[in-house]
Amino acid sequence: MSGCRDEDPRIHGIKTKIGVVPNFPKPGIMFQDITPLLLDPKAFKDAIDLFVERFKDNNISVVAGIEARGFIFGPPIALAIGAKFVPLRKPRKLPGEVIFEEYVLEYGSDCLEMHLGAVEPGERVLVVDDLIATGGTLCAAMNLLERVGAVVVECACLIELPELKGRGRLNGKPLYVLVEYQ
Amino acid sequence: MSGCRDEDPRIHGIKTKIGVVPNFPKPGIMFQDITPLLLDPKAFKDAIDLFVERFKDNNISVVAGIEARGFIFGPPIALAIGAKFVPLRKPRKLPGEVIFEEYVLEYGSDCLEMHLGAVEPGERVLVVDDLIATGGTLCAAMNLLERVGAVVVECACLIELPELKGRGRLNGKPLYVLVEYQ
Repeated sequence: MSGCRDEDPRIHGIKTKIGVVPNFPKPGIMFQDITPLLLDPKAFKDAIDLFVERFKDNNISVVAGIEARGFIFGPPIALAIGAKFVPLRKPRKLPGEVIFEEYVLEYGSDCLEMHLGAVEPGERVLVVDDLIATGGTLCAAMNLLERVGAVVVECACLIELPELKGRGRLNGKPLYVLVEYQ
Repeated sequence: MSGCRDEDPRIHGIKTKIGVVPNFPKPGIMFQDITPLLLDPKAFKDAIDLFVERFKDNNISVVAGIEARGFIFGPPIALAIGAKFVPLRKPRKLPGEVIFEEYVLEYGSDCLEMHLGAVEPGERVLVVDDLIATGGTLCAAMNLLERVGAVVVECACLIELPELKGRGRLNGKPLYVLVEYQ
């Protein structure tokens, strides 16, 4: 995290609105619950504003959001910076021709699909999710985008769990997060 | 639909950005694909603006969005009108104590869950989804909210399929839609 952002007074308010639920969805997992943040209009807006301030002058033409919680944060950022929103979805949800990437999660495995044609070669993309744990989901998202020739500029998450070292799996791409949990 | 809104020049642009995919996800279903709208920053913003213009002076304190496509439209509306965003989710996604409603879909059955405590008795709620077909999903959402004493002010969808008569299942609550498909 940048020192500048750490000192932003909005970060503290955001952090107090993220709950931790032990043993969900499986024993041993400390689940980060973003729903209290969404119940606080000011804190939710502060989080979106921080992302928008970071990305508005980066010539990003696509915000790709990962189902389902990336759909909550991605569209407001896309609308604010005038970018397309591309949903990266669970299998059998997108009706058109898709490409897919399978990946391993902190708990279980999953697959992401993207519509072919949604992103053009050379487009500059921001990938958005609520949380980075082991980085498997973001890595799959980046692979989808790079397979169609897009340029992943950065990934953005509300929360990072640094102990799981997901940042190291992003092929050197920058990752912007608002809150870290040890 | 109100005559006034029909004449809004933004509606035509929105309508041209909704695709129809036959036989998805099952034979006989004409699937309304909103992803082309999300790829057009102006048309997507126009849609959100139309919802915000409709709901900004209604003393709505909660926008409830239905997983997953209601998560794309609900948060930008909530942020713009200064309301909480409450996600209504598929089973086993919310980590806290929940109430649930099972319902029948146009194709299959499903269940929605809501965190207890997310909405207070008497709060005025807007329910948002991308599409109303038979109305089963919106009806389940309204039931969840009314069980905790909330007041559902209105439902908002991008698309209505009037032939399926879902509007008639909303217990007389108003429904605001931008686009109808016959």
